[in-house]
Amino acid sequence: EGNVADGQAKSASCAACHGATGKANNALYPNLAGQNAAYLALALHDYKKGGRSGGQAGIMQAFTSALSDQDISDLSAYYASQKP
Amino acid sequence: EGNVADGQAKSASCAACHGATGKANNALYPNLAGQNAAYLALALHDYKKGGRSGGQAGIMQAFTSALSDQDISDLSAYYASQKP
Repeated sequence: EGNVADGQAKSASCAACHGATGKANNALYPNLAGQNAAYLALALHDYKKGGRSGGQAGIMQAFTSALSDQDISDLSAYYASQKP
Repeated sequence: EGNVADGQAKSASCAACHGATGKANNALYPNLAGQNAAYLALALHDYKKGGRSGGQAGIMQAFTSALSDQDISDLSAYYASQKP
């Protein structure tokens, strides 16, 4: 259901930390390239619900608060499509 | 500080879901191969502290509750060393 091209178009904020190619620019952040789309969507929904703490969870909750279910599907499809 | 060989020796429980080569056997679980060691350690400590909910967080808390700081460092080094 996620659209890779739409996900790419929505990924500018993500790329600041997770890299334009899904390789994080800081070892404290996860690489996303090639990660399973279903897991990425689950994690984004969890951050949005405030279900994660520690690390950058506060920033992730702020970013994900603006995301619709479709946004989450698109972003997940986009990062899953990248070469790890 | 993490030791790859020690991490491998401690990874049997992890492999049941995250795969012997760090490729998850279910798309709802994350691939770990090639993930940043610092992020993996952060996530494992967060699970251990009960800082994550949703998905398999309850199972992850149970597994990580038995891990020492050194175990977490070793497991993180091991999965980071795998080819994504």
